[in-house]
Amino acid sequence: MLIARVVGSAVSTIKDEKLKDRKLLICCQTDETGKVIGKPYVAVDTVDAGEGDLVLTAAGSSARQTTTTKNTPVDSVIMAVIDSLVVEGKVTFRN
Amino acid sequence: MLIARVVGSAVSTIKDEKLKDRKLLICCQTDETGKVIGKPYVAVDTVDAGEGDLVLTAAGSSARQTTTTKNTPVDSVIMAVIDSLVVEGKVTFRN
Amino acid sequence: MLIARVVGSAVSTIKDEKLKDRKLLICCQTDETGKVIGKPYVAVDTVDAGEGDLVLTAAGSSARQTTTTKNTPVDSVIMAVIDSLVVEGKVTFRN
Amino acid sequence: MLIARVVGSAVSTIKDEKLKDRKLLICCQTDETGKVIGKPYVAVDTVDAGEGDLVLTAAGSSARQTTTTKNTPVDSVIMAVIDSLVVEGKVTFRN
Amino acid sequence: MLIARVVGSAVSTIKDEKLKDRKLLICCQTDETGKVIGKPYVAVDTVDAGEGDLVLTAAGSSARQTTTTKNTPVDSVIMAVIDSLVVEGKVTFRN
Repeated sequence: MLIARVVGSAVSTIKDEKLKDRKLLICCQTDETGKVIGKPYVAVDTVDAGEGDLVLTAAGSSARQTTTTKNTPVDSVIMAVIDSLVVEGKVTFRN
Repeated sequence: MLIARVVGSAVSTIKDEKLKDRKLLICCQTDETGKVIGKPYVAVDTVDAGEGDLVLTAAGSSARQTTTTKNTPVDSVIMAVIDSLVVEGKVTFRN
Repeated sequence: MLIARVVGSAVSTIKDEKLKDRKLLICCQTDETGKVIGKPYVAVDTVDAGEGDLVLTAAGSSARQTTTTKNTPVDSVIMAVIDSLVVEGKVTFRN
Repeated sequence: MLIARVVGSAVSTIKDEKLKDRKLLICCQTDETGKVIGKPYVAVDTVDAGEGDLVLTAAGSSARQTTTTKNTPVDSVIMAVIDSLVVEGKVTFRN
Repeated sequence: MLIARVVGSAVSTIKDEKLKDRKLLICCQTDETGKVIGKPYVAVDTVDAGEGDLVLTAAGSSARQTTTTKNTPVDSVIMAVIDSLVVEGKVTFRN
């Protein structure tokens, strides 16, 4: 999974019918401290994440292994909100 | 999903029979403002998108989770047209 | 799908038995004009493509959604020969 | 599979229910000597790996082919701890 | 598939039980002449490849479409040993 920051949201009226009422959040990959290091991508939220949260996103077919995303045409899902990250014994991020 | 701009289209006569009558659009990944930042790729349209539209594309097996693309050899699908993007509380794109 | 140029072919005697008689072509990703911009990779041909052709290739599990590649250990397939590409109203490639 | 170093761990309270009690480790891709060359990502541990270990991680749907990760929304799994790596006849890493 | 050179091997005692007795080879992507251009990764051998061989590797779920790798947590497999590569009519590699 990627460590990512939720930076915003996307609104779409015309979309696959299976995406109705799905929350589409804009995420950017971060490093272990929560610093953004990647380009924006859009993931479906399944854990009530909000802007600013540090999250984990799963890609590909794994993005469809939640009750929210099963059988839908989405390739990225937010499946966890990060409380803290520890690297080499030091806390590098805490929510 | 990637945020992408539809920049054109591809025409193919000789193709897998399951792709008959599928609309093949050329897309480029963009940033959160709609500025192109990626190389061109081709996605199957499922939402009647047109050139110039900002869209979301899903890749891999997820690209086959629409009625248009089920069981077809395609690895990218346009599954939403973007109305607007909001980053850190500001509208960065509006259709 | 990637837009790619067929630049050559690979010969292999020792291979998975399900690949017997499959044509293995060397492809390079191109831009919308057909100019090569990517590293070489090998795709299974399913549309009788030939060297020099501009084609579309599908990757991952989608590469197994043709009668030629079903249940075989291949992750890239040529599923269309491109006739023409149009970007922003101009023909950028014609076969 | 990627050769990767376990550099830390992630803690998450709010997550997909199928991830309950799963150990989330932060990994970085390394070269054949164990030197870190990639950005951090998070993988589910299935082999009781610990910080500092050199491991193999499998991505995508393959990450769900263990008893620990079956049907869960995860796209990366640690499925082996590396004892040693040999390149061109020389031991480049030994645990 | 990637064109890759087998450069070494990995030894692992603690691993997913389905990987018992699987041969784990270290590969690097090459260009069409066999020159290494990529970072090392590990693939399961299914064609009795050896160090120095030029091979094809398939990634993702396609890596599980061999009798050796079915249902196992591996995302890369060696499914062919390359005899020769021909680009633009010239032999660029011969075993």
